[in-house]
Amino acid sequence: MQRDRRDLTEGFLFTDQYQLTMAQLYWKRGLAERRAQFDYFFRRYPDYGEHKAGYVITAGLGWLLDWIESTSVRSEDLEVLREQRDVTGKRRFDDGFLAWLQGEDGFGSVTVKAIPEGRVVHAHEPIAIVEGPLAIAQILETSLLNHLNYQTLIATKASRVAEQARGGMVLEFGMRRGPDTGTNAGTRAALIGGAHASSNIGMSRLLGSSPAGTHGHSMVQLFMALGEGERAAFRAYAEMYPDECVLLVDTIDTIESGIPNAIAVFDELRHRGHDPVGIRLDSGDLAHLAVRSARMLNDAGFQDVAIVLSSDLDEMAMWQIRAQIEEEAPQYDLVAADVTSRLMFGVGTRLIASHGYPALGGVYKLVAIDDDGLWKPAMKISDTPEKMPIPGDKRVWRVYDERGLATVDVVASASQVLRRGQSLHVFHPHRIGVDRVVHTAPSVEVEALLNEVYADGLRRDGSPDLEELRSRRLRDLERLDVGVRRLINPHRYHVSVTESVKRLQRDLIAQARP
Amino acid sequence: MQRDRRDLTEGFLFTDQYQLTMAQLYWKRGLAERRAQFDYFFRRYPDYGEHKAGYVITAGLGWLLDWIESTSVRSEDLEVLREQRDVTGKRRFDDGFLAWLQGEDGFGSVTVKAIPEGRVVHAHEPIAIVEGPLAIAQILETSLLNHLNYQTLIATKASRVAEQARGGMVLEFGMRRGPDTGTNAGTRAALIGGAHASSNIGMSRLLGSSPAGTHGHSMVQLFMALGEGERAAFRAYAEMYPDECVLLVDTIDTIESGIPNAIAVFDELRHRGHDPVGIRLDSGDLAHLAVRSARMLNDAGFQDVAIVLSSDLDEMAMWQIRAQIEEEAPQYDLVAADVTSRLMFGVGTRLIASHGYPALGGVYKLVAIDDDGLWKPAMKISDTPEKMPIPGDKRVWRVYDERGLATVDVVASASQVLRRGQSLHVFHPHRIGVDRVVHTAPSVEVEALLNEVYADGLRRDGSPDLEELRSRRLRDLERLDVGVRRLINPHRYHVSVTESVKRLQRDLIAQARP
Repeated sequence: MQRDRRDLTEGFLFTDQYQLTMAQLYWKRGLAERRAQFDYFFRRYPDYGEHKAGYVITAGLGWLLDWIESTSVRSEDLEVLREQRDVTGKRRFDDGFLAWLQGEDGFGSVTVKAIPEGRVVHAHEPIAIVEGPLAIAQILETSLLNHLNYQTLIATKASRVAEQARGGMVLEFGMRRGPDTGTNAGTRAALIGGAHASSNIGMSRLLGSSPAGTHGHSMVQLFMALGEGERAAFRAYAEMYPDECVLLVDTIDTIESGIPNAIAVFDELRHRGHDPVGIRLDSGDLAHLAVRSARMLNDAGFQDVAIVLSSDLDEMAMWQIRAQIEEEAPQYDLVAADVTSRLMFGVGTRLIASHGYPALGGVYKLVAIDDDGLWKPAMKISDTPEKMPIPGDKRVWRVYDERGLATVDVVASASQVLRRGQSLHVFHPHRIGVDRVVHTAPSVEVEALLNEVYADGLRRDGSPDLEELRSRRLRDLERLDVGVRRLINPHRYHVSVTESVKRLQRDLIAQARP
Repeated sequence: MQRDRRDLTEGFLFTDQYQLTMAQLYWKRGLAERRAQFDYFFRRYPDYGEHKAGYVITAGLGWLLDWIESTSVRSEDLEVLREQRDVTGKRRFDDGFLAWLQGEDGFGSVTVKAIPEGRVVHAHEPIAIVEGPLAIAQILETSLLNHLNYQTLIATKASRVAEQARGGMVLEFGMRRGPDTGTNAGTRAALIGGAHASSNIGMSRLLGSSPAGTHGHSMVQLFMALGEGERAAFRAYAEMYPDECVLLVDTIDTIESGIPNAIAVFDELRHRGHDPVGIRLDSGDLAHLAVRSARMLNDAGFQDVAIVLSSDLDEMAMWQIRAQIEEEAPQYDLVAADVTSRLMFGVGTRLIASHGYPALGGVYKLVAIDDDGLWKPAMKISDTPEKMPIPGDKRVWRVYDERGLATVDVVASASQVLRRGQSLHVFHPHRIGVDRVVHTAPSVEVEALLNEVYADGLRRDGSPDLEELRSRRLRDLERLDVGVRRLINPHRYHVSVTESVKRLQRDLIAQARP
């Protein structure tokens, strides 16, 4: 039942109806196999309300490529299309078109270039470029957007959260609030984006990550209902898991009951030769309780026990908690850094749902169509200049300065090659009259960001593992200006176009508007 | 590859690590097979920021039951657990525990009672009650919350959107911004909650719904790039789909180009004996453009052509659009109702991501444990009274007034039966001293809301089809006070507990806090 459902709804028909109606029209007009190029990009950085992102972390490409590789056109899929009728009762899809689709058999005929997963990327630059038969590249739109938008959204949120953890562990706990099976994609993206571990067992296994988790309130409630109380619950847990004992202390009353009971059980554990690992706070004033807990744990000789915080955490809450601890710690005769350095963060709902900005508006736009072996640029005209895609066959380059920091991403024509030690006249992608000259550092690489990741029916991205994806992000963050990384009102990173791209834009607008 | 991934990550191991560590502890203590009850409920109605929900539409139960039915413990799942090691390198899960899990083989031993899908439900009342062996019911928590929280969230948003459409069609277009495969659950929930159709082909087929969709900007761009222009694109579409011709008119300029070209092509269509269906506006000032389009279409003799609006729509935007049309229509010599009655709404991102409130905080709490054949109540104590679940074995009743409107949902002990024509002393579930006497109408049913939907390894919900689920919502909305349904600052619907439940709550708090 579930397997049949997935085969029907997660394969070739995992797409929007209009992709198929357009594809049939292209087929009818003899255009279905004309090579076309579509760009994937986003226009706006996630804006969470009081705070917003100055960079985005790409994710989802690996799963998109899995989908492309494993998706064929099954006879059952064709049957679904064959049975569609319009209002007059006529069949909507022609047998000739369906036979053509069957012959194409999926997406093996497309080529995908992309900025690899885990990289820092910016607004308006193509993050993926699909080239292929017009009708096939068109049908791919929905799945591509679906796979890339959500994981990129969550990886970006995770990256912000991880930055605010300042080296403290971030544990992804969001399954229960996640979007059906989509939560697995969210877990993957969270781990790419900077979470250190997840509670999701299946996904942790798939990614070779160690799952995180201890116990919930229900365990303490159970022992209470059985008349044995909180301490008995903690003791049972410590006996079962003596070397990874993290106790949730807020089921009854953190200060009056939870911490004293945890300390009693930690004493017993230590007596038996084990090191207790931590306590977890899941309600109340987390900063205040962290300070109070640290005081009580220190007084009992447990300076090294971690304090795990959870309950509606996100990057802002974590920032605020740190600030409050810095104020409150001295009142309890504690050095704030000694408290903050033992914090770990369980982040659930607000990460998996990207609280404040629940969907990335990435789009997929036709930018060029083959015209006798040459790429003819295509463009959508709009009253809003920001809504116009950058036309034509292009490449993206990242320029670093002498300090090794990224200073500008340049969208250039495919035929242009940027080199170190160059002076380059570049233009704002949409505003008129905003241009500058960029000097690329002689000592630092100018980096081509797009790689060919799928061609000739084969994946060419090297199927990087989680560690590789995570290290890409860390490398890119180190090379990103701290102003671009800040939580609130980040500095706007420059994305520019070259002179030839600018000229092309102008020509196309002039042509379209007589 | 994809299939192996799903088997690993969407089956028995689609759960949080701590469920398994707790389950093992229960097993070790001889408690794993003790019968226990857990309640699923939510505490807060979705609060989208400027506006909030006064009711919630349940959804997700059907898929949860699919999951329960189809999920067994595979040897591969046990292997994953067998290979887990703690920090000292010792195995985390005992062979005895794994053998016990294997013997249980999934969730066939649990019983589920639930308020059926598609119904209006309220804060604090149990929407689902799981009864089963403690360890198994505990492991089920994550999947249950995941399945019910997301679909209920989206069905609720869809219901609000559908209410603002005032009879106009709502088309769900969210796949491209949806959360990986979770978007399919979102499509299902949107259709349950009031969307009339979806662009998602696979899901539409699964649910027996007709998919919606026309063409995108790329089709017009293509014809422009080929030098044929917008009108040629429209003409090609009209020739291909003469009886369901909806044209997207904003690729170049809606008023100057799109509408005139659409009218020219509609004239041709009509000449050939077909009725054009509509235009679609996807950018700009939608209300203003709808009025202008209506004027131009009317002047050309196309009073019946629909106007489909899309682009970041949600319930508030739709409300605003209607208000603006009411102001602007007379300026163009139009009756506002003649414009608004031809509107259809394509709703994408803001529905599939539940804009403003991206996760429902539904929880699953232990409420009772078997004690020699009697249910012993369990409770989580908290400094926040709203955070305390209602303890014990319970049922939910809906009381209607003489007009047939729902007035209060009553959470009663399982042994209590509520009947029509009764006077009942009821209490606020958390506040002290807030009580009232409810008179149930002699002429109107008092309705038991919870049904047994899974027992003895079998589904007992009748596997209702989409039409049935949709009609439940409509029936419930008709019986809901308009004040509870309003968009902004809705009236708070009453959920109360009976005297015996109140007494139990007080006793447990007193016991827990010495």
